[in-house]
Amino acid sequence: MATDTESLAARSREAAGALARLPTATKNACLTELAGRIESGIAQIKEANEKDLAAARSTGLGDAKLRRLTLSDAGIRQMAAGLRQVAALPDPVGGVTRDTMLPSGLRVKKVRCPIGVILMIYEARPNVTIDAFALCFKSGNACILKGGREAAHSNQVLSGMAKASLEGHGVCPDAVTLLTGSDREEMKALLKLSQYIDLVIPRGGTDLIRFVHEHARIPMVQHFHGVCHIFVDATADVDRAVEVCTTAKTSGPAACNAVECYLVHEKIAPVFLPKLVARLAAEKVELRGDEATRKFAAGAKPATEEDWGREFLDLIVACRVVPDIGGAIEHIRRHGSNHTESILTADAANAGRFLDEVQSSCVLVNASTRFNDGFSLGLGAEIGISTSRIHAYGPMGLEELTTQRYVVEGFYQTR
Amino acid sequence: MATDTESLAARSREAAGALARLPTATKNACLTELAGRIESGIAQIKEANEKDLAAARSTGLGDAKLRRLTLSDAGIRQMAAGLRQVAALPDPVGGVTRDTMLPSGLRVKKVRCPIGVILMIYEARPNVTIDAFALCFKSGNACILKGGREAAHSNQVLSGMAKASLEGHGVCPDAVTLLTGSDREEMKALLKLSQYIDLVIPRGGTDLIRFVHEHARIPMVQHFHGVCHIFVDATADVDRAVEVCTTAKTSGPAACNAVECYLVHEKIAPVFLPKLVARLAAEKVELRGDEATRKFAAGAKPATEEDWGREFLDLIVACRVVPDIGGAIEHIRRHGSNHTESILTADAANAGRFLDEVQSSCVLVNASTRFNDGFSLGLGAEIGISTSRIHAYGPMGLEELTTQRYVVEGFYQTR
Repeated sequence: MATDTESLAARSREAAGALARLPTATKNACLTELAGRIESGIAQIKEANEKDLAAARSTGLGDAKLRRLTLSDAGIRQMAAGLRQVAALPDPVGGVTRDTMLPSGLRVKKVRCPIGVILMIYEARPNVTIDAFALCFKSGNACILKGGREAAHSNQVLSGMAKASLEGHGVCPDAVTLLTGSDREEMKALLKLSQYIDLVIPRGGTDLIRFVHEHARIPMVQHFHGVCHIFVDATADVDRAVEVCTTAKTSGPAACNAVECYLVHEKIAPVFLPKLVARLAAEKVELRGDEATRKFAAGAKPATEEDWGREFLDLIVACRVVPDIGGAIEHIRRHGSNHTESILTADAANAGRFLDEVQSSCVLVNASTRFNDGFSLGLGAEIGISTSRIHAYGPMGLEELTTQRYVVEGFYQTR
Repeated sequence: MATDTESLAARSREAAGALARLPTATKNACLTELAGRIESGIAQIKEANEKDLAAARSTGLGDAKLRRLTLSDAGIRQMAAGLRQVAALPDPVGGVTRDTMLPSGLRVKKVRCPIGVILMIYEARPNVTIDAFALCFKSGNACILKGGREAAHSNQVLSGMAKASLEGHGVCPDAVTLLTGSDREEMKALLKLSQYIDLVIPRGGTDLIRFVHEHARIPMVQHFHGVCHIFVDATADVDRAVEVCTTAKTSGPAACNAVECYLVHEKIAPVFLPKLVARLAAEKVELRGDEATRKFAAGAKPATEEDWGREFLDLIVACRVVPDIGGAIEHIRRHGSNHTESILTADAANAGRFLDEVQSSCVLVNASTRFNDGFSLGLGAEIGISTSRIHAYGPMGLEELTTQRYVVEGFYQTR
């Protein structure tokens, strides 16, 4: 099995060479054709998905996982729309990020080029098969997609459509490879193939990330958990702060950029907390507060030590009253996950200090943490949100799926 | 011992927080002060270096290693000059690389910030202690310097001077930490501390790189071997090509950007090779050629299969005659190390094709491979030349020692 995996990876490497130089028009044509194939193949996709769902139900897969596994008509159309969106984005490959003429007479350019072969490891969601392929392909990378076994039938149909679209335009179908096994030994073998694979991006639960971190001998960009904080400063606009704080949880309770903890300045707590509590109660959000919070938040449960730095993945938020901005920053330093933090304030000095001292991948002033994703930040699309500080920090769009090399022109200079 | 290492790393992490926000002027003052301390401490540095050298001689360390270990007056002054150079370079921290106002009204900036804690692992050269500290510090990173045990006394004195310079300006001396043990178990423990260390940069021989690659659970940027090629196309300027080809080896026979293999177009071989051979002979460079090469290169030794893709680290170069540019590109694809490749040609189409199809970290037209370093490419300085395609590819200067985060300003937008 390891040998099969290795030969597949070797073919990905081979495909990557040509992909790096594929004209933008050809890439866009492939993506657009795939969008059409998906739209006209809804019945076929749903049939495959139904097989996965039936198997999942019979093995007693939980409701949340079943939901992620399900491909609805709207979800399928969304995949097609996503492909057309990626086709419309600028091609990052060949982009010149520096162009200087040096005293030596050398003209030195820094030019974007694909990373090479990207291994994407993900769990139940079959739409990731299409989303990840689209981004890797548009940025000139070959991809190896290791989806969850639960979604094997759905992924097989989708990657088959991708391969057919490539072949229709004379592109080597090895540009996308689907692996459906769930053998951890196979995964370990895959994670050691540094001669063929340039980057691994795991997307999934903590166990998956830890497993990859432990076994990868390939560079990894991790999309780890988001323990996001909002600091409500003394000068925040109370009503609008209630709105931002509430929706930063309710608009996506299990999203990685959802707020998990409010830090409230003690001066604003008596006014702010009662309003927040009322609003959260109306939205059925559970609040877990420290003692100071509970003085103004009737009905809040006591927060335990474990509630700080916890990703609830549900309609639950922790809350702590802090004496000042320093207390908020210190709490974030100890309990944050470097994902997303926001300050709500009218005080420019405090905004500046917060932006300066909190070094998360995305730090916001007077805006919801939910804006930390590739779409909201203007990247057009994203393959994940990195909490690694190497290569990419924050949402990874097309540019973050490239690297940069030096291209130098001279007239026979020596050194 | 592992616990000691861990607590040192934890202190580095602590120091990194403040370093990220240190004013440029303070950083420059520390670097300049250190330059002064080094210049006025030459006697003290040489005394420590003499201890290392005596110990090294008694254990029978080879000549090449002894040379690398030796700090001459000129070498010490060069370290001080390097510090002043780094002080004069622009501070990358806080640099804004994108600034957009989105339709949502969010102002989104991408801002350079330090990586955090950088572990540098190197071998005999004590000057790396100062060079690596200077670059890490200027880019706002704390560094852990794991130098070779042979250089322990020299490194101790140098890092002591660095710490004293920091303290003189109120900067936490934990910004630089020297480890002098050579226990591989200690190194393994260090390479697992991903909670404290953000990046490891190994610089040294193949064994060291392999060891770090095997044991690191921390992101790594590798500075691996350079097997650099020059393709002499049919239309190259013969005399200038001889000059470039010769000096690309002789100006630094063991440098990673030195040429290791000439690929010569068969049409130019009869004119070019005899001239090249004469020039190489005068410079005492050994040429190892394939059969076609030896027809025109009297005295060239036969190249064996192992000579392709080999880093000679000496006054030796391999040579192969190729039928066309495709043959050259294919040879590089099979035997290159993604470090540096150059084409010498008057044919613009071939230059374009070479730049396009050879995806090494630095590809040159009509210039010596020796130009692939941070100084020659205009970065001001470098901490190494990465052959990893992740994070940095090619020379790593100050900018490559930073990452980028998102800073977002709004007016209570929700999503």
